Amino acid sequence: MNSEIIVSVDGMGGDNAPQAIIDGLALAHVRHPKVKFLVHGDHARLQPALLGKSSLKHVVQVVHCDDAVGMDDKPAQALRRGRNTSMWRAIDSVRSKEANVVISAGNTGALMAMAKVQLRTVPGLSRPAIAALWPTIRGQSVVLDVGANVDTDARQLVDFALMGEAYARVVLALDRPSVGLLNIGAEEVKGNDEVRDAAAALRASGLPLRFHGFVEGDDISAGTVDVVITSGFAGNIALKAAEGTARLIGHYIRSAMQRSLLSRIGYLLSKPGFNVLRQKMDPRAVNGGVFLGLNGVVVKSHGGTDGVGFATALDLAIEMGESDFVARIADSMAHLPPSIAALGGAPAQAAQ
Amino acid sequence: MNSEIIVSVDGMGGDNAPQAIIDGLALAHVRHPKVKFLVHGDHARLQPALLGKSSLKHVVQVVHCDDAVGMDDKPAQALRRGRNTSMWRAIDSVRSKEANVVISAGNTGALMAMAKVQLRTVPGLSRPAIAALWPTIRGQSVVLDVGANVDTDARQLVDFALMGEAYARVVLALDRPSVGLLNIGAEEVKGNDEVRDAAAALRASGLPLRFHGFVEGDDISAGTVDVVITSGFAGNIALKAAEGTARLIGHYIRSAMQRSLLSRIGYLLSKPGFNVLRQKMDPRAVNGGVFLGLNGVVVKSHGGTDGVGFATALDLAIEMGESDFVARIADSMAHLPPSIAALGGAPAQAAQ
Repeated sequence: MNSEIIVSVDGMGGDNAPQAIIDGLALAHVRHPKVKFLVHGDHARLQPALLGKSSLKHVVQVVHCDDAVGMDDKPAQALRRGRNTSMWRAIDSVRSKEANVVISAGNTGALMAMAKVQLRTVPGLSRPAIAALWPTIRGQSVVLDVGANVDTDARQLVDFALMGEAYARVVLALDRPSVGLLNIGAEEVKGNDEVRDAAAALRASGLPLRFHGFVEGDDISAGTVDVVITSGFAGNIALKAAEGTARLIGHYIRSAMQRSLLSRIGYLLSKPGFNVLRQKMDPRAVNGGVFLGLNGVVVKSHGGTDGVGFATALDLAIEMGESDFVARIADSMAHLPPSIAALGGAPAQAAQ
Repeated sequence: MNSEIIVSVDGMGGDNAPQAIIDGLALAHVRHPKVKFLVHGDHARLQPALLGKSSLKHVVQVVHCDDAVGMDDKPAQALRRGRNTSMWRAIDSVRSKEANVVISAGNTGALMAMAKVQLRTVPGLSRPAIAALWPTIRGQSVVLDVGANVDTDARQLVDFALMGEAYARVVLALDRPSVGLLNIGAEEVKGNDEVRDAAAALRASGLPLRFHGFVEGDDISAGTVDVVITSGFAGNIALKAAEGTARLIGHYIRSAMQRSLLSRIGYLLSKPGFNVLRQKMDPRAVNGGVFLGLNGVVVKSHGGTDGVGFATALDLAIEMGESDFVARIADSMAHLPPSIAALGGAPAQAAQ
């Protein structure tokens, strides 16, 4: 394994580029010594970051380009003037099959816009989605969409279910991941039309999918299902609400442990326990959203991450690069049951 | 204060009724000795629970009724056969002005359905909403809607902003609460039409409202604004995702502290700190959703709560009962700027 894998890297994406990118490559190289990296970006800035990383000499190839997408650039603006950016070039290496997978810690909107233009949506699929890994009591689950789409219809939710299941097979190494549709628990309402129609379609489809039915917001962290399907609007809000809650509790823990001398001594004694806790709560340990549904896999690292977090996202990119994920999705879409196709969703139009 | 307040109580609502209800009343009575309680329910079951609570003798009046709404009853079913239930009767005491506010730990859907029928929506208002208190780094914020409505248009979001602001003035004791609209952060999209239209309307309205603009999911726990406005679908999912995250971290803490003897000793020494943490994370400390927008205030306690949690919800009910919240909302609605009225939302029809 790993021997043939080439990862295309946006060397200039993210708040701490290029240093965090190069640091991440050095860490990932220890774990995946045979993987090669094509790093796109400004030679004059990448070379100093590479100094002292002699281990990377034979696995990193720098491909110079002058320009970079800014973290605050509008996607349309980035698309217009972007052909010379490290992000565009990094995606292009996957489009041209030079690389197996592309990774960037840059501007999410620009990355999605450029990836759609260059890689295009898999034929038959309504729209791409962004999948996140979510820590749970049972381990990890996949949640999608976490922000690629604002308005999501039933057909898109069904597509997300198919993509999410295929993704969970790869990253969670499961034979038959269970899939749930995120819904609300207030008893007077059983969700909106999209959610109900998608559930009915999944049940009636005859697809070999372990469809669990509806799940609620607290089922995500409980790990009730392996794959949680939702609209980009609700998924993004859920993900960020959870991140905010983790930060709030971290704040509570710090202030609680500083209340008295005894608490502080206790804290010191419990340090190994707290270190485990810190690792569990470290957002760098689950870094990496994946754009699913394009003719090529794009991994998005958190923009503010450091080398450790970027290396986690690289692990994910390498795992996806080794898999036949895109071929599997294309195959699923080519063999959709008529009941799903009947849901509509104008895939030909959306595949732009 | 407090001297004139009468709270109407659904004595049979919730998983642990009637004991949790009576325990809660005893706790609340210590804090609010002048408040009176009208407790609706089965006399034969309420009397044993009241044994030994002699302090409640002069402040609790039991009003017998035979029936009770089941926790799993469908709202429509509860409405049809519900006139003899403790829930219906409890709401009726507010309708008839015998009581200032009603509280129930029962079935949320049935409670909302019955409250709408009996109390009706405030004239001019599109729909009622459920508001929750959310712990933040700065204290508490108000979030609404957390589940009363599935589909929410721009006009409803504006109504939620007006109600949420008025509610925050009461429960957070703020003069000019700031208000934010929950949106998603993926850069390529700036939210759906409803959210954008509502933001434009709030900016253009000339209302004396401190409108902050958009906030993201992690802004809720950060306390970026005092009032967070969202659809019932996203709000319910955010709330439950946050609850699930808090449970997950509680699980991490317990297992981390049991890893070694040293961790356990440290844990014992830090116990006071952990107790503060436990209090902070105790869902009973923020128990109580409030139905806003009806001609009467309805407080919903968590169904699975005990006496401590029910007493927290009673605190909230008493605070709302003392306020002129309903009159204020009615006044706001009677003086809506034309730009808001122009958003539509068929209030006359919705006020059923």
